[in-house]
Amino acid sequence: MSAATNARRGRPDLEIIALEQGAHTSYSACGIPYVVGGSVGGIDDLVVRTPQEFRDQHRIDVRTRHRVTGVDLSARRVEVRALDQARTLHLGFDHLVLATGARPLRPDVPGVDQDWVHGVQTLEDAAGLLAAAASGRCRDVVIVGAGYIGLEMAEAFVDRGARVTLVDRRPYPLGSVDEPIGSRITEVLEGYGVTVRCGVDVKGIGDHVVETSDGSLVADLVVLGTGVTPNSSLLIDAGVAAGAKGAVRVDHRQRTSVEGVWAAGDCADVFHQVSKERVHIALGTVANKTGRVAGLNIGGRYASFPGVLGTAVTRVCEVEIARTGLDSAEADRAGIEFVVGEAVSTSRAGYYPSAVEVLVRLLAEKGSGRVIGGQLIGADRVGKRIDVVATAMVGSLTVYDLVDLDLAYAPAIATTWDPFQVAARDAIRKLGSLR
Amino acid sequence: MSAATNARRGRPDLEIIALEQGAHTSYSACGIPYVVGGSVGGIDDLVVRTPQEFRDQHRIDVRTRHRVTGVDLSARRVEVRALDQARTLHLGFDHLVLATGARPLRPDVPGVDQDWVHGVQTLEDAAGLLAAAASGRCRDVVIVGAGYIGLEMAEAFVDRGARVTLVDRRPYPLGSVDEPIGSRITEVLEGYGVTVRCGVDVKGIGDHVVETSDGSLVADLVVLGTGVTPNSSLLIDAGVAAGAKGAVRVDHRQRTSVEGVWAAGDCADVFHQVSKERVHIALGTVANKTGRVAGLNIGGRYASFPGVLGTAVTRVCEVEIARTGLDSAEADRAGIEFVVGEAVSTSRAGYYPSAVEVLVRLLAEKGSGRVIGGQLIGADRVGKRIDVVATAMVGSLTVYDLVDLDLAYAPAIATTWDPFQVAARDAIRKLGSLR
Repeated sequence: MSAATNARRGRPDLEIIALEQGAHTSYSACGIPYVVGGSVGGIDDLVVRTPQEFRDQHRIDVRTRHRVTGVDLSARRVEVRALDQARTLHLGFDHLVLATGARPLRPDVPGVDQDWVHGVQTLEDAAGLLAAAASGRCRDVVIVGAGYIGLEMAEAFVDRGARVTLVDRRPYPLGSVDEPIGSRITEVLEGYGVTVRCGVDVKGIGDHVVETSDGSLVADLVVLGTGVTPNSSLLIDAGVAAGAKGAVRVDHRQRTSVEGVWAAGDCADVFHQVSKERVHIALGTVANKTGRVAGLNIGGRYASFPGVLGTAVTRVCEVEIARTGLDSAEADRAGIEFVVGEAVSTSRAGYYPSAVEVLVRLLAEKGSGRVIGGQLIGADRVGKRIDVVATAMVGSLTVYDLVDLDLAYAPAIATTWDPFQVAARDAIRKLGSLR
Repeated sequence: MSAATNARRGRPDLEIIALEQGAHTSYSACGIPYVVGGSVGGIDDLVVRTPQEFRDQHRIDVRTRHRVTGVDLSARRVEVRALDQARTLHLGFDHLVLATGARPLRPDVPGVDQDWVHGVQTLEDAAGLLAAAASGRCRDVVIVGAGYIGLEMAEAFVDRGARVTLVDRRPYPLGSVDEPIGSRITEVLEGYGVTVRCGVDVKGIGDHVVETSDGSLVADLVVLGTGVTPNSSLLIDAGVAAGAKGAVRVDHRQRTSVEGVWAAGDCADVFHQVSKERVHIALGTVANKTGRVAGLNIGGRYASFPGVLGTAVTRVCEVEIARTGLDSAEADRAGIEFVVGEAVSTSRAGYYPSAVEVLVRLLAEKGSGRVIGGQLIGADRVGKRIDVVATAMVGSLTVYDLVDLDLAYAPAIATTWDPFQVAARDAIRKLGSLR
């Protein structure tokens, strides 16, 4: 819908049709855990704009419950199944935008397709999870996968009074951070009453039981937080080039390998500004931005997308965890040699009563001192402070620049030296130089 | 003390003497309002490190209650009055660092020197204010000057149960932001019970009364928050060159015009990275950073300071107000033509229960689109988000870059588009271009 509205802005004359297999447009999938946990009132709250609003305000012909079943690139038309009318139609196009998103990966184990094993993506998923959570019958919940969705769903079900076990094959939660941050997350989760079982493989799902490499777990409900895979087959099957992780390969203007065919959001790949590789990162912010770029281009403007930094943030029980750029494992894989500046600081001046501990890590390339990544964990609303590291990377700043940066300070708000500046000083020491 | 410890790191052989006319070293003057208001337990909490810690850990010969009364640059020695011994001594130096800070400006009106008219700077000031606040005898408090200190002291005395009137000659509080932010501050202050009298001049202070251009105000206590002036006369009188606003002029390594004589902190001027002019900005963060640079250089390292951005943040009753770069008036004075991107956004996803309104402004140069300043106001701990704008300016980013920036998002933490990105999109529209 971001592509559609931005195309409309440039081209009032276009006939724009949006085809959606579900009943909703523009909803916040990221908000589902908060509906399930009860902190957000209802599923309708997640709908940012209804199909009718797009029709009325942007003259976009939104057709919900219409599933695209095929793309014919030579005839320039799509085959569409109108689900409620049970009929098939064909629609021609000058421009085609694929914005089909991604779908939860389901582990390839027996029993995973039972109806009490839930993915977390659509509002239909949300309704099923909410009904189960609110019923009070879910006493034992097993979450498979300790990524962002896994952590948020764990908190949601604890808030609903369930006994929650979080299982992940990796050695610590949230694989996209370094171990010291991961260990801290485990402590926070356990403090909230979640049983954390890392380094454990799920082998199968039976009758109210999850079989793992380390014994069986009783379960009234299973939630899958095992990542997503791009819904790219409509275009790939039609002959459009594939990119990272099976997503549709796009260029800096969101063009695919076929003229007049575009892709944006979770179904497309994207350039990583730090590793300089094409990657697949399924995030609402990226989807909004790339949809906007595709739409502006279709509307006759010039727009390009510089890529992502791998920025992400989540929250477990008031503790915010954020990361950007490369973590240590990613930097190793990218062949970058680096030091890690570490700091244990506080969210406000140490003497200020509501100050809490903030743990940060800052990765800097050897030699250049260029900032290549950062991570933090702490309560008191510190998560967005990761944005300084993200912005620094886009500006090609080094740890030397970061130390001198004029960042905001007042005792009731922050420390004199921002935690990332303390980490930058540590990185400088490790780089073997005081300038 | 930052200069002293950093010099020590490079040069274990140096004899380092620190002369301080007061009884304390390294205290947080910024924390005084919170001690007066009662949220920080006591004055001792503001002392970061004691003189004895510097002696023990860094072998720095700290002499408190020693006032430097003169500097002889040709003889390379200072004249010192040992206040408790009532004797005068002379100390020779190879390197001299002036770190005498700044002192509160006292308006040139009758009665301003009475003992119930308080500046806010030293721990002695803090003790006086705390005694008055805690006594319960301060029913009517008049704060002169609605800058950072003025706002924080207003809140402190409201917290102590006083009737507080804030007087400022400028048209709205916090002159370093644009009017829409200033008006919002007025609403917040009034909502907290502070009487705000802007556009009003103080004419004199009588017997429990403050005479203004708009009538008299009853007062049991007056607090001056009318800015500071650098304590630079020791060096200026000795022949060292003066810089901005009468501060000691320093270069990028904190060197004054005289070889071996350095200045850092509030007594020195500083380069402004956006206006490209030398300015006087008295802030603890800048003082810490410039002290470090002076010390590293004296210790034989090479260190330079790139300058400030004019970043500042404060808080009134949970509402945080932050700014960086140039505000509209400063940009006008600098001869920069610009647009202002405006946004009214929220601190978290709109549907998330604890989301509150965030008002932001983003200044961008015409033509280039270069970010030259930003301001924000909002509760829910959003103040530090100004740091993105500060970092963007150091990286020479434009509003086009800012729109695409990969900033952190999760519904319980932030909005999909950061408020400054919404403002950047507004700025782009005003720049007359959608790219």
